[in-house]
Amino acid sequence: MSRVRVHNLSVSLDGFAAGEGQELEAPFGHAGTRLVEWFLHTRAFNEMHGQAGGSSGVDDALAWTWKAGIGAEIMGRNKFGPQRGPWTDEEWKGWWGDNPPFHTPVFVLTHHPRPSLEMEGGTVFHFIDASPKEALRQAREAAGGLDVRIGGGPTTVRQFLAEDLVDHLHVAIVPIVLGRGERLWDGLEGMEQRFQIESVTTPSGTTHLTFSRP
Amino acid sequence: MSRVRVHNLSVSLDGFAAGEGQELEAPFGHAGTRLVEWFLHTRAFNEMHGQAGGSSGVDDALAWTWKAGIGAEIMGRNKFGPQRGPWTDEEWKGWWGDNPPFHTPVFVLTHHPRPSLEMEGGTVFHFIDASPKEALRQAREAAGGLDVRIGGGPTTVRQFLAEDLVDHLHVAIVPIVLGRGERLWDGLEGMEQRFQIESVTTPSGTTHLTFSRP
Repeated sequence: MSRVRVHNLSVSLDGFAAGEGQELEAPFGHAGTRLVEWFLHTRAFNEMHGQAGGSSGVDDALAWTWKAGIGAEIMGRNKFGPQRGPWTDEEWKGWWGDNPPFHTPVFVLTHHPRPSLEMEGGTVFHFIDASPKEALRQAREAAGGLDVRIGGGPTTVRQFLAEDLVDHLHVAIVPIVLGRGERLWDGLEGMEQRFQIESVTTPSGTTHLTFSRP
Repeated sequence: MSRVRVHNLSVSLDGFAAGEGQELEAPFGHAGTRLVEWFLHTRAFNEMHGQAGGSSGVDDALAWTWKAGIGAEIMGRNKFGPQRGPWTDEEWKGWWGDNPPFHTPVFVLTHHPRPSLEMEGGTVFHFIDASPKEALRQAREAAGGLDVRIGGGPTTVRQFLAEDLVDHLHVAIVPIVLGRGERLWDGLEGMEQRFQIESVTTPSGTTHLTFSRP
């Protein structure tokens, strides 16, 4: 059975997975890069973006797991780009350039569908107005038996967790107090009881938690 | 210079350091013992309560550090007991029996002062209506050059952190989503910048963070 997975989701000590004020120049809002520093220095991150080098320790090992065995991704519209409401700029093709790092079908959840976008390297963006369950049905079909990744942002992940649709969750706790932004854990009281949890702290100060179905 | 220290403060993934509904039978409210399981199994905890046995690993080592070099404690009234408002029951002498584990002067912050309570083993409870700074002045005087511990609860710790009065903070992140209760981190945006932070995850799944003045 194909699994539904979340990877590399950084969260502050106070439970925020994105800052306040997301915009074109600041995809994480006032958090800047503070939530994702541990990730930016890894080889996995560089490889995703067509570059060489980076660290190859435990942060990197965990970061790589996002890729293996994934056949489709589902993402929220806010991860795709900073526009809100009806699409005013259909030239916008995401943050990632002509060859995005996904290389699979990607289902973008939006109340404003638009034609699919076929990119280089196998990524195809589909824009669908669907519930989590229905989006997952379509993504599973497109994934051809492989796993489906919920790519974020935090609101999208929270919706899938709230409906108990996630089989594997990798969270990176970053020791900062963000103060404001988008909370990951709201409405998820007791969710840890559905999972086996492992934790490890790496020399970057990040604590990685994996939540897996028992 | 004597330092101001916080120890063994357990916090959930969503940032709650106590549950909702604190009362006589449930000092942590709906959280029950879930926030403090890692602590309850240690030798340090047992020794505090006059009992033998317990684990002697990394959780225990960190738990012990609460004790060394402390000359006085400051605690919020909610840590002292479940009563609110004017004291209706002056027979209440805290949760800890005749010989509390502090063995130093303990300053209880309350808007309703009452006579000091001298317990067995050196603990003396003083009830004072004072600001954090003034309470600290009194506690420092009583500590005779040793350190002052801020004993909790979360609201009291947060007040001292907000006024930048804390030199050392030990937090234990417990991988549960509590959903409701008393938040530790509210109003403390960016506080990590004042500290050097170390993190370690133990086999109990707890992640210990120490915040120290550089």
